[in-house]
Amino acid sequence: MNNSIDKPEDYCGIVGVFGSPEASIWTYLGLYSLQHRGQESSGIASSDGEKIHKHLGMGLVSDVFDQNVLEELPGHIAIGHNRYSTTGSSNEQNIGPIVVNHKLGTIGVAHNGNLVNSHSLRGKLEDRGSIFQTTTDSEVILHLVAKSWRNSIEEKISEAVQQIEGAFSLVFITKDKLIAVRDQHGFRPLAIGKKKDSFIFASETCAFDLIEAEYIRDVKPGEMLIVDKKGMKSRQVIEKTTPKHCVFEFVYFSRPDSQIFGEYVDKTRRKLGKNLAEEKPSEADIVISVPDSSNTAALGYSARSEAKYEIGLIRNHYIGRTFIHPKQKIRDMNVLIKYNTVGGVLNDRRVVMVDDSIVRGTTIKGLVKRIRKAGAKEVHIRVTSPPIKYPCYYGMDFPTKEELIANGRSVSEIAKYLGVNSLEYLSLEMMLNAMPKDNGQNYCTACFDGNYPVSIKECLTKEKEQKD
Amino acid sequence: MNNSIDKPEDYCGIVGVFGSPEASIWTYLGLYSLQHRGQESSGIASSDGEKIHKHLGMGLVSDVFDQNVLEELPGHIAIGHNRYSTTGSSNEQNIGPIVVNHKLGTIGVAHNGNLVNSHSLRGKLEDRGSIFQTTTDSEVILHLVAKSWRNSIEEKISEAVQQIEGAFSLVFITKDKLIAVRDQHGFRPLAIGKKKDSFIFASETCAFDLIEAEYIRDVKPGEMLIVDKKGMKSRQVIEKTTPKHCVFEFVYFSRPDSQIFGEYVDKTRRKLGKNLAEEKPSEADIVISVPDSSNTAALGYSARSEAKYEIGLIRNHYIGRTFIHPKQKIRDMNVLIKYNTVGGVLNDRRVVMVDDSIVRGTTIKGLVKRIRKAGAKEVHIRVTSPPIKYPCYYGMDFPTKEELIANGRSVSEIAKYLGVNSLEYLSLEMMLNAMPKDNGQNYCTACFDGNYPVSIKECLTKEKEQKD
Amino acid sequence: MNNSIDKPEDYCGIVGVFGSPEASIWTYLGLYSLQHRGQESSGIASSDGEKIHKHLGMGLVSDVFDQNVLEELPGHIAIGHNRYSTTGSSNEQNIGPIVVNHKLGTIGVAHNGNLVNSHSLRGKLEDRGSIFQTTTDSEVILHLVAKSWRNSIEEKISEAVQQIEGAFSLVFITKDKLIAVRDQHGFRPLAIGKKKDSFIFASETCAFDLIEAEYIRDVKPGEMLIVDKKGMKSRQVIEKTTPKHCVFEFVYFSRPDSQIFGEYVDKTRRKLGKNLAEEKPSEADIVISVPDSSNTAALGYSARSEAKYEIGLIRNHYIGRTFIHPKQKIRDMNVLIKYNTVGGVLNDRRVVMVDDSIVRGTTIKGLVKRIRKAGAKEVHIRVTSPPIKYPCYYGMDFPTKEELIANGRSVSEIAKYLGVNSLEYLSLEMMLNAMPKDNGQNYCTACFDGNYPVSIKECLTKEKEQKD
Amino acid sequence: MNNSIDKPEDYCGIVGVFGSPEASIWTYLGLYSLQHRGQESSGIASSDGEKIHKHLGMGLVSDVFDQNVLEELPGHIAIGHNRYSTTGSSNEQNIGPIVVNHKLGTIGVAHNGNLVNSHSLRGKLEDRGSIFQTTTDSEVILHLVAKSWRNSIEEKISEAVQQIEGAFSLVFITKDKLIAVRDQHGFRPLAIGKKKDSFIFASETCAFDLIEAEYIRDVKPGEMLIVDKKGMKSRQVIEKTTPKHCVFEFVYFSRPDSQIFGEYVDKTRRKLGKNLAEEKPSEADIVISVPDSSNTAALGYSARSEAKYEIGLIRNHYIGRTFIHPKQKIRDMNVLIKYNTVGGVLNDRRVVMVDDSIVRGTTIKGLVKRIRKAGAKEVHIRVTSPPIKYPCYYGMDFPTKEELIANGRSVSEIAKYLGVNSLEYLSLEMMLNAMPKDNGQNYCTACFDGNYPVSIKECLTKEKEQKD
Repeated sequence: MNNSIDKPEDYCGIVGVFGSPEASIWTYLGLYSLQHRGQESSGIASSDGEKIHKHLGMGLVSDVFDQNVLEELPGHIAIGHNRYSTTGSSNEQNIGPIVVNHKLGTIGVAHNGNLVNSHSLRGKLEDRGSIFQTTTDSEVILHLVAKSWRNSIEEKISEAVQQIEGAFSLVFITKDKLIAVRDQHGFRPLAIGKKKDSFIFASETCAFDLIEAEYIRDVKPGEMLIVDKKGMKSRQVIEKTTPKHCVFEFVYFSRPDSQIFGEYVDKTRRKLGKNLAEEKPSEADIVISVPDSSNTAALGYSARSEAKYEIGLIRNHYIGRTFIHPKQKIRDMNVLIKYNTVGGVLNDRRVVMVDDSIVRGTTIKGLVKRIRKAGAKEVHIRVTSPPIKYPCYYGMDFPTKEELIANGRSVSEIAKYLGVNSLEYLSLEMMLNAMPKDNGQNYCTACFDGNYPVSIKECLTKEKEQKD
Repeated sequence: MNNSIDKPEDYCGIVGVFGSPEASIWTYLGLYSLQHRGQESSGIASSDGEKIHKHLGMGLVSDVFDQNVLEELPGHIAIGHNRYSTTGSSNEQNIGPIVVNHKLGTIGVAHNGNLVNSHSLRGKLEDRGSIFQTTTDSEVILHLVAKSWRNSIEEKISEAVQQIEGAFSLVFITKDKLIAVRDQHGFRPLAIGKKKDSFIFASETCAFDLIEAEYIRDVKPGEMLIVDKKGMKSRQVIEKTTPKHCVFEFVYFSRPDSQIFGEYVDKTRRKLGKNLAEEKPSEADIVISVPDSSNTAALGYSARSEAKYEIGLIRNHYIGRTFIHPKQKIRDMNVLIKYNTVGGVLNDRRVVMVDDSIVRGTTIKGLVKRIRKAGAKEVHIRVTSPPIKYPCYYGMDFPTKEELIANGRSVSEIAKYLGVNSLEYLSLEMMLNAMPKDNGQNYCTACFDGNYPVSIKECLTKEKEQKD
Repeated sequence: MNNSIDKPEDYCGIVGVFGSPEASIWTYLGLYSLQHRGQESSGIASSDGEKIHKHLGMGLVSDVFDQNVLEELPGHIAIGHNRYSTTGSSNEQNIGPIVVNHKLGTIGVAHNGNLVNSHSLRGKLEDRGSIFQTTTDSEVILHLVAKSWRNSIEEKISEAVQQIEGAFSLVFITKDKLIAVRDQHGFRPLAIGKKKDSFIFASETCAFDLIEAEYIRDVKPGEMLIVDKKGMKSRQVIEKTTPKHCVFEFVYFSRPDSQIFGEYVDKTRRKLGKNLAEEKPSEADIVISVPDSSNTAALGYSARSEAKYEIGLIRNHYIGRTFIHPKQKIRDMNVLIKYNTVGGVLNDRRVVMVDDSIVRGTTIKGLVKRIRKAGAKEVHIRVTSPPIKYPCYYGMDFPTKEELIANGRSVSEIAKYLGVNSLEYLSLEMMLNAMPKDNGQNYCTACFDGNYPVSIKECLTKEKEQKD
Repeated sequence: MNNSIDKPEDYCGIVGVFGSPEASIWTYLGLYSLQHRGQESSGIASSDGEKIHKHLGMGLVSDVFDQNVLEELPGHIAIGHNRYSTTGSSNEQNIGPIVVNHKLGTIGVAHNGNLVNSHSLRGKLEDRGSIFQTTTDSEVILHLVAKSWRNSIEEKISEAVQQIEGAFSLVFITKDKLIAVRDQHGFRPLAIGKKKDSFIFASETCAFDLIEAEYIRDVKPGEMLIVDKKGMKSRQVIEKTTPKHCVFEFVYFSRPDSQIFGEYVDKTRRKLGKNLAEEKPSEADIVISVPDSSNTAALGYSARSEAKYEIGLIRNHYIGRTFIHPKQKIRDMNVLIKYNTVGGVLNDRRVVMVDDSIVRGTTIKGLVKRIRKAGAKEVHIRVTSPPIKYPCYYGMDFPTKEELIANGRSVSEIAKYLGVNSLEYLSLEMMLNAMPKDNGQNYCTACFDGNYPVSIKECLTKEKEQKD
């Protein structure tokens, strides 16, 4: 739930609803619960069985939608999309869901993840005479759907997703159907909820709570679920599947009260904290977290340590529109503006600060300075994940390799840069040990070890071209 | 320049500039001068040789653009579009210019006119797997361009415009070219201007005045003009051409200080007024106009009549955003709010009011009431065009046939409905007599006599389907 | 109705309504009709008998108010205020009407005019411990009302207006009364209208037309009118009265369809034009006006001249918010943006352009350039008033003496500056000859001859202090 | 830092700066840190030695101000005000600081607190002819300042504050001075900070942290501090002083990282939690807080209890503009939207939830329902303060007595209403025991025991009148 500027900033949250007369309101509430997955723009498309309605806008969910807007999104089917982007493409054209007309009627899609072969797919499509109005993967996918020669929309989507590679959790809306699909590795989460006869898909289960829906299970890797008035049907559209869930969803990104990949995020984070305390103990008086994303991990660390859990940093939650604007100039100001130190807690103490990850290191460096200023005798940092050394090409928009602080620096060099008394990272092994099931072999750890489950060759070529 | 709700309300103004370092500002000024051709939304796309930039918005030109916005539209090429629409499609997605990526790069287009075969073209494109994000003709045209197998962008556009039918004046922008095309009948105007080495295209020549460019000539029916750094080249892309200029551009729509179809609008309107006075005289004390579109015609009428020209109606120009909003509810209020009667002029007089056309008749009926209230002894109406009995399918968005007051009503029935002492229309013959060149045989008069130069069969079928 | 930047720009329009259940809507419509008297801000205060409600905002009447806003202004009494200001004081605090609480309850006021002793009155009030939240005359007046020891609100207002000097047409609102007062010279207009049992006060009678009220008579100089549920009562609150109506209201400022000072503006302007043609003829082919304020005068000129009336300049009415913003930087742009020349009319003609007045001369100089550019062989200017040489301290906010083009320049010097073939002004005598009644002896001509009916000593002192 | 709708909602935060060339930016940063004290509107007034500049607006600090706005607030002196109000008076007119002109020049004031005799003071002032444009206490105070016959501004303010009764922490700005005053009981906090030669006043010390100023001491009850270019001077303007600090500032309102009344808020809250655990233990598995205001108290409770501290509720911080709007209709929706329950933590546990206070009880009732739904076996509530039975007339805008859940209800009745297994409040004695110094005899506990240190007779009379 932390959106510090040290953390990945281009991600998405998606929702799909079928069967409620208030489908768009449910979607709105779901998006609201998934606000942490994207604060830049938000959109909903709904179907009343005849026509697909749409509303999109820049800003927070609660700013983009109001009572009047939701009333103009009638129908029993809806999909929604939250988005946040640091790239130049933060324009209104790219706000999801994207909705188009094609041979079989109107279709919309919301996408969480990142395709690794969208560049070549666009090229091929353009060669065949296609035009593109956005720079989104969603548009590529819809082109493939429309180009398919198969007869039904399910078949068309099925053919389309067999051509795309990378990470994708997708919800489609048509006049009368809601369709969800997940890639063969299940990189990004996608859960199924149910309330009476209605079905809900959402990036995280926290989206079910406000509407009091029940969490059924996850969409399986390679699975397509088709919901229409006859109910929900499952089809395996991608045969060869190997789960490679994003470990970072547990470490940092998802909301603690959500279940993803079949487990409570909160529980896993506590375990990460405990493992960290055992593997990388520290002599300190108090344990503090970087609120809010590290709170549970810090509690876990404290449980296995002598040091007491204390609230040493307060986060300011009134940051407002300025912060969410992607073109901010006064970076440092905004960092300072975000946290306040609690002098009474920190003064004259040896402090161990638990954080979930370090990306660029700028925010945490600033925090260390302030904690010392508040009187801390020692500052130790413990991180519940290994050093991030490789960019993510599956939807977690880390900066370029060059900007990652752990790229080409030893842990002691980073410690020196941050100005701390000690710095320790949890090992890859012990991080995976905290993951539910199978000791973590079902997880993608590419950002830590460079083992990319899906080839990123095309991405690297494209990056190289852009530099030259 | 009149945008009374009795008049056609779905039209466009377009501009294109090549060769000025301030191309987007020139385009802005051009659009500003063409504001009367569309007040609902406005957009500009510019090219700096590398990238195409775009800004669109709902509202008047002066509201959509400001200094900051124009600075983010750099480059020496730009196209612009004003639009107004009464149909449900007045959403932001449809604001022009529309810009897309295709095989050869980025391309944008601004369109004035209306295609009669867009429905079937969309169908064919969708059958071949194309997707549509808007309901505009522009998107159909860009699909055809992208689908063309020819090599150069000129060839592709050329192939595309050979497939479309109806009225179209088009300006295209690419990374390094500005291209203008006009349909084989030249329904809508499109003029070429020049300032030093820069070229400007615009719907009307009034767009040249603010930037002090010189009017060269019109784009010819079926002609394509390609402007790039080597200068301007002409190609005839449609062979069989028969001029069928929209007579209504002279009668009502264009700005009096513009030259269209090679003649000053103002001059033609004066002639219309004179012809009207000779063909349909009236015994009256004073001649008044419905400001502002009928001013010159009323002057012309007065010149051939005993009655003096007077200013009997004042138009309120501070109507503001409310009026331009397409979903207005309080129709009558806005009509009343628009004109005030000058008591000192009208009282105790026999008044002949010259108007350019009567569409639905509701505004003029209201005006007659108010003129009588101001003390006029008699009210006579003289119209500088024949009764409008047929919808326009070439870009002048008259209401449906059923809503046209002259549809199925005799002139005396209309006179009775309006509550006037007499009502007379100019004959088709004498209207055409006022047109420049060839006694008007180069003009489209479909809205008066139902002779549609391009088959509207597909439009009628579509209308019928929508009703059923 | 012209608000060119050559013209005075700090003025007001006021409205008051008693007795309609839709008092605020009537006031809104009145303000809308008086939009030409102030485009910067607008406000309405209404009373439902219990409480006074208020809404104010920057912008045009139609932008400040909408259906929702008007519904929150309930009651049968309302006053309204339009304002425009070039001075630094264009802040939201100063938007009228100003409403305050005092001993007897709540009271609001809208003011048209300018006090010449407000500076010393403020000083005296401050010496006695008063505080000021705005820089308006209205607040001074309300302080005087509140400070009065008399018992009734009528008596208090009466005492207050006996202390203020200069130009004031005022409407007051209290919980249960509407009160109108005019200064002893009747500088600014203030008319009384009636519709059934309701009374309406307005700066000009054009405000009565939209609500179909009947014009009764003007508020007399020095008269107070009190309207409450018992009806309308008149009291003479200032004994010594000498009519000194602002001649400039007829010449330029008021709307042509209004009656002010007992006569149609339009009629007087036609007479001004006729007098001008007779006194200052010209050898020309055509007469054109500077639209819209000089239209009638040009018609009058043409009637007494050989030259035909033509429409040679078209005014652009879509200028939008940018123009009304008082801090505009790109002055020249906005001047150019405002008028277009009709080439077909002007080319190869000897043109006489009739204008109502010349203040700074910058706009007209630009117009002359453009008319020549359009091909005019000769340009002659005829002005329906004498040279403006002295600032107005009674509510017509001319610039400082130094900025007036006629200050210290002969007519031939001005002609040279403007670049015209000839320039002639109507004489003071012939201007007054066109005024209704008594050959104009009831008019203030201070801006032409420096004869100020009310001492401006305090204003001059203040100006001097500000310079030093 | 909690602004749940169960909590008092009409309060203020104030800041004053003298001596920084960036006074308005410092003030902005201070207000930003004090955002929790008022989210409805914000304003800053600054002085450049010549003129006082001002900017006010509805919304969060970061929305009201941006770079441009701050640049138009030049000078080395500034004061600022955050405000939140549930009453009808949430209009723009009432936004602070209020700035007026009076005899000695311009003066502005920002006020935190509530006067108990403003009604009679207004009455007396109106009797003497004063007018009021707002309904704020600030305007009353400025009237008294202006009415004072003393010579210097210090003397005038001094005389003014001797007439007002109730709670007031005030900062005044003049052309060249910054003046701070606090009432004789020191109800509301007001701290003095210093950075080099600059002085800063702020409601809480957290406002000093962003600008890295040093906390010196508090303004003493009855003390006036005058800062000008000669430095800071202290004067005791009210002689008889008895500290009666608002205990609720410690219990709930202030930010945990602030020092108020000479102690860290955080420290006191931890002690409240510990006292509560000792006085009112519970048999439970886990202790959770109602985030964020009860976090530290819950930690303290856990430290003296068997139950582990856990994070069982997650607060949503993306609530946006809708929530801060004072006229919200869908109350319940917004309550639900605010908190999510962490299922993994709560399921199958006996939960003790620590809260700082219960006002209306509606939010907490909703929370209890959700905690049970998340699987909790038992829900116990422990409150770190006694039942609130009496309204506050000193600036903490509790609802009316009738709306207070503890008014006329026993603890067991409240427990039943909330649906909890047990409910216990901390005793008055043990709450005061947790306060710094003197076992709490310097604190106002009126909301708990009805002992009002300053007579509230006038308030009760006014309330009664309003009901009748």
